Amino acid sequence: RVNGDRLWDMLMDMAKIGPGIAGGNNRQTLTDADGEGRHLFQRWCEAAGMTVGVDKMGTMFATRPGSDPDALPVYIGSHLDTQPTGGKFDGVLGVLAGLEVVRSINDLGIKTKHPIVVTNWANEEGARFAPAMLASGVFAGVHTIDYAYGRKDPEGKTYGDELKRIGWLGDEEVGARKMHAYFEYHIEQGPILEAEDKQIGVVTHCQGLWWLEFTLTGKEAHTGSTPMAMRVNAGLAFGRIMEKVQEIAMAEQPGAVAGVGQAFFTPNSRNVLPGKVVFTVDLRTPSQEKLDRMRAKIEAAATEVCEALGVGCSVEAVGHFDPVTFDPTLVGRVRGAAEKLGYSHMDIISGAGHDACWAAKLAPTTMIFCPCVDGLSHNEAEEISKDWAAAGCDVLFHAVVETAEI
Amino acid sequence: RVNGDRLWDMLMDMAKIGPGIAGGNNRQTLTDADGEGRHLFQRWCEAAGMTVGVDKMGTMFATRPGSDPDALPVYIGSHLDTQPTGGKFDGVLGVLAGLEVVRSINDLGIKTKHPIVVTNWANEEGARFAPAMLASGVFAGVHTIDYAYGRKDPEGKTYGDELKRIGWLGDEEVGARKMHAYFEYHIEQGPILEAEDKQIGVVTHCQGLWWLEFTLTGKEAHTGSTPMAMRVNAGLAFGRIMEKVQEIAMAEQPGAVAGVGQAFFTPNSRNVLPGKVVFTVDLRTPSQEKLDRMRAKIEAAATEVCEALGVGCSVEAVGHFDPVTFDPTLVGRVRGAAEKLGYSHMDIISGAGHDACWAAKLAPTTMIFCPCVDGLSHNEAEEISKDWAAAGCDVLFHAVVETAEI
Ligand SMILES: NC(=O)NCCC(=O)O
Ligand SMILES: NC(=O)NCCC(=O)O
Repeated sequence: RVNGDRLWDMLMDMAKIGPGIAGGNNRQTLTDADGEGRHLFQRWCEAAGMTVGVDKMGTMFATRPGSDPDALPVYIGSHLDTQPTGGKFDGVLGVLAGLEVVRSINDLGIKTKHPIVVTNWANEEGARFAPAMLASGVFAGVHTIDYAYGRKDPEGKTYGDELKRIGWLGDEEVGARKMHAYFEYHIEQGPILEAEDKQIGVVTHCQGLWWLEFTLTGKEAHTGSTPMAMRVNAGLAFGRIMEKVQEIAMAEQPGAVAGVGQAFFTPNSRNVLPGKVVFTVDLRTPSQEKLDRMRAKIEAAATEVCEALGVGCSVEAVGHFDPVTFDPTLVGRVRGAAEKLGYSHMDIISGAGHDACWAAKLAPTTMIFCPCVDGLSHNEAEEISKDWAAAGCDVLFHAVVETAEI
Repeated sequence: RVNGDRLWDMLMDMAKIGPGIAGGNNRQTLTDADGEGRHLFQRWCEAAGMTVGVDKMGTMFATRPGSDPDALPVYIGSHLDTQPTGGKFDGVLGVLAGLEVVRSINDLGIKTKHPIVVTNWANEEGARFAPAMLASGVFAGVHTIDYAYGRKDPEGKTYGDELKRIGWLGDEEVGARKMHAYFEYHIEQGPILEAEDKQIGVVTHCQGLWWLEFTLTGKEAHTGSTPMAMRVNAGLAFGRIMEKVQEIAMAEQPGAVAGVGQAFFTPNSRNVLPGKVVFTVDLRTPSQEKLDRMRAKIEAAATEVCEALGVGCSVEAVGHFDPVTFDPTLVGRVRGAAEKLGYSHMDIISGAGHDACWAAKLAPTTMIFCPCVDGLSHNEAEEISKDWAAAGCDVLFHAVVETAEI
C-alpha cells in the first residue's frame, strides 16, 4: 500500500500555490502560479531521485530508470493546471499520485524492468487556451506545434509567448518519447461512484467531444429607440440557441450532454443591442453516432434560429475528440488490482476529456477514477477524502508495478 | 440662420478625440479621452466669450451673460461622453449646437435678457457607470451625490475616484443653479424622421425606462461529466429569460421595447457550467401603465424560469425614469420655429433617455430631434447630414432666442 498521508500532504502543499477565492485554486496554465507549481513538483521529483525533462510544449517528464536499458517507460500522467475557479484535485491528484507511486517503489526498494515516467501535461484544462489537452494533443500528433503556439487567451496573448515568459519552454522535441503503457488516475468529476458507493472507477471508455464556437453577428443599435421590428438581435438568437442545445441533448438521453459555459457580448453595454455574441457549445457522448448527429443538429438549429432573426452565424470547431476505448489488458489489470486490494469498484465511462484520450493513440492506455463529493468539479468546492485518494493510488501502484515488471 | 459649416467643423474636430475602431468614437465618461474632449470644449467656449463653471459631478456650464441680472438662464444641454462603440453625433450634436447658437448670437450682436448656458452633462450614456443621465439625475435631486460617487465601472473603479483622476471635479454644488428653461437638441437614434422624410422632430414626450439587473445563481460544474439532470444551469435560465423578454415586449406592441445589451458569465470557461450570469434588461414605453406591467411581467417570468431550473434569481433596478411630457409652451415654440423657417417637421416621442428627462423636473423643458441614417445609433456607423444638423440648430437658435427674450 502507498503512503496516503504523504500523498495528501503533497496535495495540500500544491493547493497553496495559486489559491482561488473560495477554497479552491486558480492556477491556470502558463501563469506565474503555474510556473511556481512546476518548480515545486520538480523539487519533489528530484528529491525522489528522478530526472526531469521538459519538452517544447512545456510538458514535464520525471523519470525513474528501469533495469532494462531497452525497455520503454510506463507513463503515469495528468496535469497541474486548473480552471480559473477550479478544485484542488482535478489533475493534481493524478500527477502527485504518480509521484507517490514512485516514492513507495523507492521505499520498498523495488527494481522495475521498465522505467517509470511521471508526467505533468501542459494546458490540459483548455480554460485559458482552447482546446483542452493541448500539449498531449501535440504529443500525439493531433495538432501541430505551430497551431498550439498560436492559440490565444481572451487577452490575445499566445501560448508560445506565455510559455517562454514563465520560463518553461523545454528543449525536447514534442512526441519524441515512446511509451510502453500510459496510466492516468483522476477524480471522476461526476456523481456516479459516490452514488453507487464505490471506491474505484475502472475506466473503460471516454466520451467524445465537440467544442463549437459560434459567432453571431447582429446590428449594434440603441435598446430604447430601435423598434422591435427593426432589431437584428444577436443576443436573442443566442438565447434561442441555448434552448435548442438543451432540447437536442435531452432528445439523446441517456448518455449525452451539451451546454454553454462561455459567452462574450460586444460591446456589452446595457443600452446597446449586441452587435456580436461569441459563445461555445460543449457537447459530449460516448456514442460516435450521437456525437456526429448532435453536432449536425446543433449547427442546423443555430442556422435556423439566426436566419429567422436575420442574424449572421458562423461556427468554428475549437476542440474535438472521438470516443475512446481504453486498452482491455490494462483495464483488466486495474480491475484485478482493485479486486486483490479489496476495494469496491465498478466500470465507468469518463465524462470529461483527459490526456489519456490522446495517449491512447500512442500506446496501451487506461484510467482509474476516484469518487468526488456531489460529483462536483470545475468548482472551487470540489472535494475528495484522503481515503479515496489513497485507495486509487494503491490500485495505480499495483497496476503500474505489474506493467513495469519487477 | 446659424453657420452650419462651423457647427460641422466642430463636430468633426471633437470626433478626433477618443476615436473608435470603425469610424465612430470611444470617449466614455471619465476616461482620459473624455478629459481631453472637455478641454477642447472649454477652449471653444472661452473663445466665444463664455465663462465655464464645473460642478461636483463634473458637469460643465458655459455662460453667456444676459442683460437682466435677475433673469434666470436659458439652458441648452446634452453630453460629450459616448458609448464604447458610439457615434460622432449622439449627445455631441446638442452640446456643440448650443455653442453654435451662442456664436451666431455673438455674430449678430444680439443681447438677450436671460443668460444662456451651454451644458455638458457628465455620464449621460451610463455605459461605464450605470445608470445613464447620472449627473443630471443628481442635479435634479433624483440621486444623491454619494450614490453617484459610489457607482462602479466593470473594473470596479468608482465614479468619484475617476472624476478626481481626470481632473474634472468642480466646486459648484450640484443642483444649485436654477433654470428659466431647458432645451436639448439630439439625434433621434431611431428610424421615424428619415422614414417620414422630416427635417425636424418636435419632441413632445420621452418614454419611461427600467434597467433591471438580474443575477442568476447556478452551480458551477463540469460541462462534460455533469449529467443533464444534475445541472443547475444559469446560462440556460438566461436564454429562456431573453425569450420571455422578447415575448413580453411583442405582446405590448406598438409602443414598447425590451432587450438585453449586457451579460457576464462567471467563470466564463468553455467547460464550466456558469455559476453566475449577470445581465441587464432594458425596457421602455411611453405608457406608465405598460411600463409598470412590463416590469412586473418580466420579473415574474424570470422567477418562473429560474424556479423550474433550480436557479437562484435576484433583481436590482439600476436605472429608472417615468414617461415624461415636455412643456407645451416650449414644444409650441419649437414647432413654430420649424414652421417659420420652412423646415418639414413632425411631433415625435423620444425612444432614448436624455438629460432633458431630468431637467423637466426642474424647469420648462423640451427637445428637438435630428434625423439619423437608418435610425442607427449606439453604433460607430451612426450618421447624419450637415444640412440636417444645421436645420435643427436653426430651430434651436430661434426657440432659444425667443425664450431668452431680446
Ligand atoms: N478533466 C477535465 O476537466 N479536463 C478538461 C477537458 C474537459 O473539458 O473535459
Ligand atoms: N440618448 C441616449 O442614448 N442616452 C443614453 C441613455 C439611454 O439609454 O437612453
